[in-house]
Amino acid sequence: MVIIVETGADEETIERLIDKVSALGFTPHPIYGVEKTVIAVIGEKTQEKIEVLETMPGVERIVPILQPYKLAGREVQPQTTVIEVGEGVLVGGERVVMMGGPCAVESYEQFLNIARYVKQSGAQMLRGGIFKPRTSPHDFQGLHEEGIPIAKAVKEEVGLPFITEVLDARNLEALHEVADVFQVGARNMQNFALLTELGKADRPVMIKRGMSATVDELLQAAEYVIVEGNDDVMLCERGIRTFETQTRNTLDISAVIALKRLSHLPVIVDPSHASGRDWMVPALSKAAVAAGADGLLVETHWHPQEALVDGAQSLTPLEFANLMTSLRAFCEAAGRSL
Amino acid sequence: MVIIVETGADEETIERLIDKVSALGFTPHPIYGVEKTVIAVIGEKTQEKIEVLETMPGVERIVPILQPYKLAGREVQPQTTVIEVGEGVLVGGERVVMMGGPCAVESYEQFLNIARYVKQSGAQMLRGGIFKPRTSPHDFQGLHEEGIPIAKAVKEEVGLPFITEVLDARNLEALHEVADVFQVGARNMQNFALLTELGKADRPVMIKRGMSATVDELLQAAEYVIVEGNDDVMLCERGIRTFETQTRNTLDISAVIALKRLSHLPVIVDPSHASGRDWMVPALSKAAVAAGADGLLVETHWHPQEALVDGAQSLTPLEFANLMTSLRAFCEAAGRSL
Amino acid sequence: MVIIVETGADEETIERLIDKVSALGFTPHPIYGVEKTVIAVIGEKTQEKIEVLETMPGVERIVPILQPYKLAGREVQPQTTVIEVGEGVLVGGERVVMMGGPCAVESYEQFLNIARYVKQSGAQMLRGGIFKPRTSPHDFQGLHEEGIPIAKAVKEEVGLPFITEVLDARNLEALHEVADVFQVGARNMQNFALLTELGKADRPVMIKRGMSATVDELLQAAEYVIVEGNDDVMLCERGIRTFETQTRNTLDISAVIALKRLSHLPVIVDPSHASGRDWMVPALSKAAVAAGADGLLVETHWHPQEALVDGAQSLTPLEFANLMTSLRAFCEAAGRSL
Amino acid sequence: MVIIVETGADEETIERLIDKVSALGFTPHPIYGVEKTVIAVIGEKTQEKIEVLETMPGVERIVPILQPYKLAGREVQPQTTVIEVGEGVLVGGERVVMMGGPCAVESYEQFLNIARYVKQSGAQMLRGGIFKPRTSPHDFQGLHEEGIPIAKAVKEEVGLPFITEVLDARNLEALHEVADVFQVGARNMQNFALLTELGKADRPVMIKRGMSATVDELLQAAEYVIVEGNDDVMLCERGIRTFETQTRNTLDISAVIALKRLSHLPVIVDPSHASGRDWMVPALSKAAVAAGADGLLVETHWHPQEALVDGAQSLTPLEFANLMTSLRAFCEAAGRSL
Repeated sequence: MVIIVETGADEETIERLIDKVSALGFTPHPIYGVEKTVIAVIGEKTQEKIEVLETMPGVERIVPILQPYKLAGREVQPQTTVIEVGEGVLVGGERVVMMGGPCAVESYEQFLNIARYVKQSGAQMLRGGIFKPRTSPHDFQGLHEEGIPIAKAVKEEVGLPFITEVLDARNLEALHEVADVFQVGARNMQNFALLTELGKADRPVMIKRGMSATVDELLQAAEYVIVEGNDDVMLCERGIRTFETQTRNTLDISAVIALKRLSHLPVIVDPSHASGRDWMVPALSKAAVAAGADGLLVETHWHPQEALVDGAQSLTPLEFANLMTSLRAFCEAAGRSL
Repeated sequence: MVIIVETGADEETIERLIDKVSALGFTPHPIYGVEKTVIAVIGEKTQEKIEVLETMPGVERIVPILQPYKLAGREVQPQTTVIEVGEGVLVGGERVVMMGGPCAVESYEQFLNIARYVKQSGAQMLRGGIFKPRTSPHDFQGLHEEGIPIAKAVKEEVGLPFITEVLDARNLEALHEVADVFQVGARNMQNFALLTELGKADRPVMIKRGMSATVDELLQAAEYVIVEGNDDVMLCERGIRTFETQTRNTLDISAVIALKRLSHLPVIVDPSHASGRDWMVPALSKAAVAAGADGLLVETHWHPQEALVDGAQSLTPLEFANLMTSLRAFCEAAGRSL
Repeated sequence: MVIIVETGADEETIERLIDKVSALGFTPHPIYGVEKTVIAVIGEKTQEKIEVLETMPGVERIVPILQPYKLAGREVQPQTTVIEVGEGVLVGGERVVMMGGPCAVESYEQFLNIARYVKQSGAQMLRGGIFKPRTSPHDFQGLHEEGIPIAKAVKEEVGLPFITEVLDARNLEALHEVADVFQVGARNMQNFALLTELGKADRPVMIKRGMSATVDELLQAAEYVIVEGNDDVMLCERGIRTFETQTRNTLDISAVIALKRLSHLPVIVDPSHASGRDWMVPALSKAAVAAGADGLLVETHWHPQEALVDGAQSLTPLEFANLMTSLRAFCEAAGRSL
Repeated sequence: MVIIVETGADEETIERLIDKVSALGFTPHPIYGVEKTVIAVIGEKTQEKIEVLETMPGVERIVPILQPYKLAGREVQPQTTVIEVGEGVLVGGERVVMMGGPCAVESYEQFLNIARYVKQSGAQMLRGGIFKPRTSPHDFQGLHEEGIPIAKAVKEEVGLPFITEVLDARNLEALHEVADVFQVGARNMQNFALLTELGKADRPVMIKRGMSATVDELLQAAEYVIVEGNDDVMLCERGIRTFETQTRNTLDISAVIALKRLSHLPVIVDPSHASGRDWMVPALSKAAVAAGADGLLVETHWHPQEALVDGAQSLTPLEFANLMTSLRAFCEAAGRSL
C-alpha cells in the first residue's frame, strides 16, 4: 500500500507513522517531496492493518496496490475456467451457452411446454425460479418445495441441465436433487453465510452482481465460495442501479469486459433483468456476445401476459427462437458458436 | 393503477386491453384523448396482475397509485410507533436515543472500557458487532460465538441495552440471550429469509437501508417483518452509493424526512458508516437530529488506531463525549432531549 | 396527464382541484376508487400548468403521459433521419460511420499523420478537438484559433469530413470554415444558449449525452436545436456517471437501443470517453454495433504516450486498423456495412 | 503522483518507465516489492504529463497525491473567505445568510409582494430568475431583458441585494446593473467559457454544483473563476442525481462538510431544488445549518399554485416566515445568528 501523508504534517508525526508501519510488520519506504510525503509499504497486508493505519494522525489516505481478491483473479490463473454443468455442457468454453426458461416454475404443464421449446430452439440449459425473492411480502414467491419435483420431471424429460436460485442455506439440501447450478441472486450477493455454504457444495454456483456492487466486490463474493473449496463459480452481470428510468436497471456492458480481463471465471449476462423490457432483450443479447460474454440467461414464457412474475421482460417462444437465429452471426463474428 | 396506452394503438387493441382488465376482476375506466388513451383501473391489485397487464399489446406503461407497503405506512397508523428496548429505553419518543460502542466486540476489556465511557457520556444503548459482514473472506469477521458471553457480561455490568447485527437465521437463538435489538445490515436488507425469521422473534429489529435501496424498498423490507407479527421495527439510514468519493457512502438526509412522513416507524441515522470519516460524524449527527431522526448509531473506540475493524470512522471516547455535549443544543432546537 | 389525489383528501378539496383543472383549460375526468381518486386530464399541456397543479392542496403527484419531446420523437417521423455530412457521407444509413482521430489537434504533422492512417483504415470521418473543455483551468485547452487552419489543411489533404467540439457560441463563426459537424460536449448538453445558436447553423450537430442526463433530457436537448430549424441532429452516448470505478464512466448500451426506438435521429457511440481505457475500446465498439449504433467516435493517436490529452483512452494506428478489421463481421451480422 | 506498475512487468519495462519519468522532468523513486513495484514521482506535475505516463506499457494506474485545485483550497488560505454582497451583507461570516424569493421574476407586482415579505421575515438577500434554464424549449424561460428593470425597481424598493442566474456571457452586461451576485446554474457548472468571463467580472459569483459533479470538480470550477482574478466565489450544494425517486435530487449534506474542510470559500445550500418538495424545505434547511452551511437559498412564492415555474418546491410567505422563526434555534446551536 501507499500512505499519503497530510500536507503540513510535522516531522514527529511522520516519524510516529513510520514506526507504526514497522511495528505492524511492514517495511516502510518514505519519500519526501516539497509539498507531499508518501510512504510506500512493502509486505503482506490485511484490511485490518490498513484500517489501523487509516486512523493514525497525519494520514490523509491509503492507496491499496494489490487487488483485494486472489483466487478469482487472472494473475493466479491465466487461462479461463471451463465449468462442466450436468453432463457435457461447458460454460466458459468456445460455445456461448444459452440458458432459457421462465422466471418462475408455475406448473408442470407451463414449465414442460416452455422447456421443450427452449431445447428445440437450441438452448443448452434450462432456468426457472422455485424460490423467488420479491420486494414485497404480499407478492407471489414461487412454488417452494412443491416446485422441486415439477422441475425435476421436466428437466429429465427434456434432458437439459437446470439452474435455479437458492435464497436460504436451509433449502440447499432440497434443491440439491434438482439444481445443476445454484444461482445466488443480486440481493444475496453479499449474504456471506449463504456464499460460505455454497463453497462447500459439490455443484457450480452462479453469482449475480448486486444492484450497486462494484466489479471488485463481485469478485470478492466469488472469493467467499472459492476459499471454501468450490472452484466452479460463474459471474453474472444483470444491470446496476442508476438514475436512468428507461430501463429497470442499467446493463453495465463494460463490466463484462473488465471481469473477463481481471478474472478467469466465466461471465454470463442476464439481459432480461437488466432491462426489464422484452423488446430490448435481443439487442442486449447481441451486445453481450460482442463484448465477450460466455453465456446468456434469458427469460421466456409461453404466454407472457399470463406469467405470474416478471412478464414484461420475458420473450415469447417465437421471440426466443428468433433470438437464437439472429444471435448466431454475432457468435461467429466473435469467433464462437452457439 | 393507471394504464397508459401506446400512441397509435387501434380500437381493437384497446378493446382487448379493457376486456383483460375486466377478466382480472377490475373495473376499467377508459379515457380517450386526442393523442393518448389512458385506462384507470379500480380494485385491489397485486404485483402479479400488474405484470400480466404490462405484457399486453398496446400497453406503454402502468403507473401504480397505491403505496406498495401497508403495515409500515402512516396512512394505516398516524401516530409514531414508540418501541421499548430493554427496560425503559424508548425509541421513537421525545428523547433522541444515542447508541454508542465499537464496530466489533474484540475482547472483554476493550468492550467494557468503551461501554463504561459511552454510558457515562449519556448514551442510552450499547452497540457492538459479534458477527461482522466483511466484503472479503480474508478479513476479520468478528468473534462469533465467543463474543456472546463477553457482550452479555459487559452489557449487564454497565446496564445498557445492546444492539448487534444478525447475519444468519441460524445464529438467532444464540444471539437471543444477549441482543435487545437485532440489527439487519445493509447487505441483508433484502435477505427475505432472514427478515421472515425476525418477524417471528420477540425482540425489536432495526433494518439498515441497502446501499442502493429506495425508501420504498426499505419500507417493504420492514413489511416482511411486520407481516409475521413483529411490530417493533426501526429503520436506519446509513448512506447510499453514489458517484461521490469524498465519503464512503452518501448520507441521504432527505430519506430521514421522507421516512418520517411516509411511515410511523422510528428512524435512526448511522453517520459513521454513511461517511466512513470520523471527522464528519459530529456534523452529520447534528444534521440528522435537525432533520428529525429519532436516534443515532455512532461508532466509538478506545484506541481507534488499534481497532480491528473500521477504525477510520470511529470516534475516540473524548470525541464521543464532546459530541454528546454539542448535540444537546440541537436536540433542544428540535424540541427534544438527549 | 393523470393527477393522483392524496389518500384521505375530502370532497371539497377534490372539487377545488377539478375546478382548477377546468380553469386551466383542460377537461377533467375524475375516477373515484375506494382507496384512491385519480383525475385524468385531457388537453394540450405545458410544464408550467403541470407545476401549478402540483402545488394544489390534495395533489399527491402528477404523472405526465405525453413524451416531453415532439420533434425528435419517432411518433412524428417513423423513418430514421439520414444526415449527409460533407459530400456523400451518410450518417443514419446502412453503413456504420467510423469517426477517428486524436482527442486534440496538436500540430499539422501530428494531425496529418494520424488522419492519413485513419482514412487508410477505412474511417469515413475525422475527429479532433480544437477547443477542449478541461476540468481544471491549469490543463491544456487545445490550440484554439491556431488549430483551425491546421485542421482545415489536413481535412482537405485527406479528403474526409471533420467533426469538432464547439464550447462557446462566439467561436461558431471561426469554426464554420472547418467543421462539417459541430459537436456539443457532455458538459454543455444543457447549455441552452449554445444549443439555440446551433439550431440556426447550417451544419449538422452531434449532441453528447451529459454525464447524468436521462435519455429524455438528451432528446429534449435535441429539441432545442430542431425547434430553431436545424433538423440534422445526431445523438451520442458516451457513458454515464455511476459508482463503478473500473471505467471512467459507464457506457449505457441500453440507451442506444432506447434512443433508436424513441427517436428518428441517428445514434453514435463514443467508447473512448465512455471507458477511458484503450483496451476496452474494441469490445465496446463491437457491442455498440451489435446494439444498433449508427456510428462510432474513436480516439486514435500516433504515439499515445506523447499525446497532450487523454492518451490513456486512445488507440494506436495499428490498434485502430485492427479494430476496423475485426468490426466488419459484427457490422455484417447486424445487416450493415462499415 | 505514485505510479503503480502492472504485476508481472519485466525489468526492461520498468526501466523504460523510470526513464520516461526522468525525461518528463520528474525525480522517480522506485520501490520494489515482492508482488508489486511502485514508483513515487516527485516534482510539479500537470494533467497532461500524467496522461502521457498513463499510456506507457507497464503502468497499471497512477494515483495523484496533490489536490487538483490550489486557489480554492484551505491549504493555501486557512481562514474562511468572507464576501461582502451589496452593502454590508457578509457571506461566510458569523451570520447565516438567508436568500429568499421566487424561482422566476414574473411581474413587478408579484416580485414586489414577495420581496417585501421576504425582507420583513428577516432574509438578507433576494433571489429571482430572469433568465431560466429549462429542460424543454417549449417551457417558460423567464422574462429575459424585460425582467431587468422590474428586478432593479423591486430590489431598490426593499433594499436587499439581489442574486440571479446568468446563462450566457452575452447577458452579463445587461445583468450587471441589477445583479449583486451572479449565479452559475448546475447545468453550467462546467461551462468554462462562462466561468472564465465571470472571473473577469467585479461581482461575487455563486457556483451551483452540477447534478453529477464531484466535490473536487466543483472546486475546480471555482478555480476557473479565481484564476482570472475574481476571488469572491461562493459554492452551492443543490442536490445530486441518484436512483432515489422520493426527491427530485438527493441533497448531499456530507458535501457541505467536505467543502467547508477542503476550501475557504463560503458554502450555500439550496433545499428547494435539492428536494423539489416544499414540505421538505424546512427540515433540510435546519440540517444544512447544523452541518455548517453559511447560507440558504430558498424559493418562496405568493401563490405557489399560480407560479409559472417550480411551484411544487416553493414555500408560501407564511411558511417562509415560520421557517425563519424555527431556524433561529438551530443557528444558535451552531454558534451563529440568522
